[in-house]
Amino acid sequence: MISVEKALQIILNSTQDFGVEEIPFLKSSGRILKESILADRDFPPFNRVTMDGIAVDFISFQNGQRSFLIEGIQAAGSEQITLKNTENCIEVMTGAVLPKNTSAVVRYEDLEINNGIAAILIDEIKDLQNIHQQGKDEQKGAILITKNTQISPAEMGVFATVGKSFVKVAKQPKVMIISTGDELVAVEEIPLAHQIRRSNVFTLVSLLENLKIPSTTNHISDDKEVLKNTIKEYVETYDVLLFSGAVSKGKFDFLPEVLEELGVQKLFHQVAQRPGKPFWFGQTTSCKVFAFPGNPVSTFLNCLVYFYPWFYKSMGLKIVEKTAILAEDIYFKPDLTYFLQVKLNYKFGHLIATPINSNGSGDLSSLIKADGFIQLPNDITEFKKGESYPIISYK
Amino acid sequence: MISVEKALQIILNSTQDFGVEEIPFLKSSGRILKESILADRDFPPFNRVTMDGIAVDFISFQNGQRSFLIEGIQAAGSEQITLKNTENCIEVMTGAVLPKNTSAVVRYEDLEINNGIAAILIDEIKDLQNIHQQGKDEQKGAILITKNTQISPAEMGVFATVGKSFVKVAKQPKVMIISTGDELVAVEEIPLAHQIRRSNVFTLVSLLENLKIPSTTNHISDDKEVLKNTIKEYVETYDVLLFSGAVSKGKFDFLPEVLEELGVQKLFHQVAQRPGKPFWFGQTTSCKVFAFPGNPVSTFLNCLVYFYPWFYKSMGLKIVEKTAILAEDIYFKPDLTYFLQVKLNYKFGHLIATPINSNGSGDLSSLIKADGFIQLPNDITEFKKGESYPIISYK
Repeated sequence: MISVEKALQIILNSTQDFGVEEIPFLKSSGRILKESILADRDFPPFNRVTMDGIAVDFISFQNGQRSFLIEGIQAAGSEQITLKNTENCIEVMTGAVLPKNTSAVVRYEDLEINNGIAAILIDEIKDLQNIHQQGKDEQKGAILITKNTQISPAEMGVFATVGKSFVKVAKQPKVMIISTGDELVAVEEIPLAHQIRRSNVFTLVSLLENLKIPSTTNHISDDKEVLKNTIKEYVETYDVLLFSGAVSKGKFDFLPEVLEELGVQKLFHQVAQRPGKPFWFGQTTSCKVFAFPGNPVSTFLNCLVYFYPWFYKSMGLKIVEKTAILAEDIYFKPDLTYFLQVKLNYKFGHLIATPINSNGSGDLSSLIKADGFIQLPNDITEFKKGESYPIISYK
Repeated sequence: MISVEKALQIILNSTQDFGVEEIPFLKSSGRILKESILADRDFPPFNRVTMDGIAVDFISFQNGQRSFLIEGIQAAGSEQITLKNTENCIEVMTGAVLPKNTSAVVRYEDLEINNGIAAILIDEIKDLQNIHQQGKDEQKGAILITKNTQISPAEMGVFATVGKSFVKVAKQPKVMIISTGDELVAVEEIPLAHQIRRSNVFTLVSLLENLKIPSTTNHISDDKEVLKNTIKEYVETYDVLLFSGAVSKGKFDFLPEVLEELGVQKLFHQVAQRPGKPFWFGQTTSCKVFAFPGNPVSTFLNCLVYFYPWFYKSMGLKIVEKTAILAEDIYFKPDLTYFLQVKLNYKFGHLIATPINSNGSGDLSSLIKADGFIQLPNDITEFKKGESYPIISYK
């Protein structure tokens, strides 16, 4: 049995680059960018008017002039026009190019316009006021978004602005999710007294959907030969297999044996943690196998604790640690990392983790009541209210 | 000009119920549940074995017996069998029904099995140990998930468990996103010196995609008649219109005028905030109109500050406030609510908001550098490091 830290280290040493694909930018939300996005021109690309009003030559104002004949209008989307007489002005609209020979914009609120003449009602204006100067935000060629960024709505706007209608993103692994266990029946069926419905595979599908990974699912019965033949094909076809169940010590828990017979190299089996201890992890040259224990909370937690970081690192994404503050004293004696289910709340900028009552790893409904796990290390027995520990949040 | 609080109150008083639809549970992630999900049976549905090992009658152990003849095997997914002689035992697998006449499970690690006889190696066992008792987590008929919950992977597992292959969710509003402004060209085009590419509509599409709202986009040129004819049709066809641009005081900012001419009741125009001030909001009996100012940061922020809460409340979802701690002193004099762009980090359970440098509402690239806005109220001028304020995070 190895520690959580060691297990995670082994998994993070087994990450894989799945290459790059180019997709329409509007389909890229949540994906990991695999190119740097550069400014194709200065931002703003011209001296841009930021208020509706008039543009004047600042020198004229400074020389005491307060009334300006309106020579014309500079609308947004029109080519730059020129102020011919620097004692006149041009009406300008937000988003327009600043007219040539002007150097300050005075907003309508500070004007009175009569008979084509704009009178400035305020005593002070500043050179370059209400002008967003060309290149102020970014110079042409500057990196706007770095490679390996996870794409969100903000990035989407930048793609559009610089004309990236297609973007290079990390290819997703091809994933198969497999349940085992003869006690399981389909969602549409009415289970007999000793049966339950399949649920973990769908939880996993949904957890992967949150990473924009499409996946396929299957169920294999607890028959060693069937298991072996089916998995053989999957190992050759998929980049990742996620199993739920059949990794405990039971008579019908053939999975570790079958995987090793198929040449999947075991990297570890069993991690010193609660819940989720009987986790098995291994690989071939082309396939990673995460075999999670079959209890719903164990499968759920281990996907977040192991598969998520493996995926993020494979994609080139940095993993950011989140911490929260315990709202209660916790006593936990076993020499195991304890992933305690908690409800998370923000109070005055503090993220507070309040433990919820749970009946252990079989208690699926506890996942609804909580919205995260707080990770309490194995070498401590008493955890005090007010102390902070890493958290894994899922809502 | 009204305050942010007042604007939000008006918007939250204009929420709308879009009804309910039934969809396959696997398509429901992110949607808002519109029925309570009940336990269709006890959870667990039977006394469930939680360790691989043997099941014994606890009384026999208590009477001093340590060696047990193995009568049979109870596998997961098999009908319950009966221990015929209470001085014998039955091998049991995780997930199996506890055999009749047994009351404790001893795991393999605490046994030695030879010639069909299991010897218990430990001195103490407890009645009912390693048994997840029927109905312990939830009784049949209990509410497992309440109506108006946002569906996440945890809920997905519960749907499957109780056999809800279809679930009732809130219908999404039908949304049209419209850009205006003659300076805008398509993403695929090379803009002339005075032009820029359309970007806000795509940011909005992506922000709505995060709420699982599909949307349509269009661009209308700054021509009053065209604007009027097109919007007339949209107001009749869509539940929500989101505009970007044409709400300032400019000569070509026809939008407020056109909307009012079309019978869209103005609820407010201009909010005392920076950025995002020229926001216009109105409604007809069947359509809500959010007309955001055209600067990229303004559009982005106002969608998060106004449209998101409007949507959540319309769907029946509770809005949870998040707060963060300022990492620096901030001085802001205008009598406006200041949405300051910040980078967010967790440190010892504290969410720290560090302001980033930005060149104002036109600075699209600042949205990449930040990952949220901290909301600084208008009635304070000096904001001190260490103070906490509400945040709107978007990454």
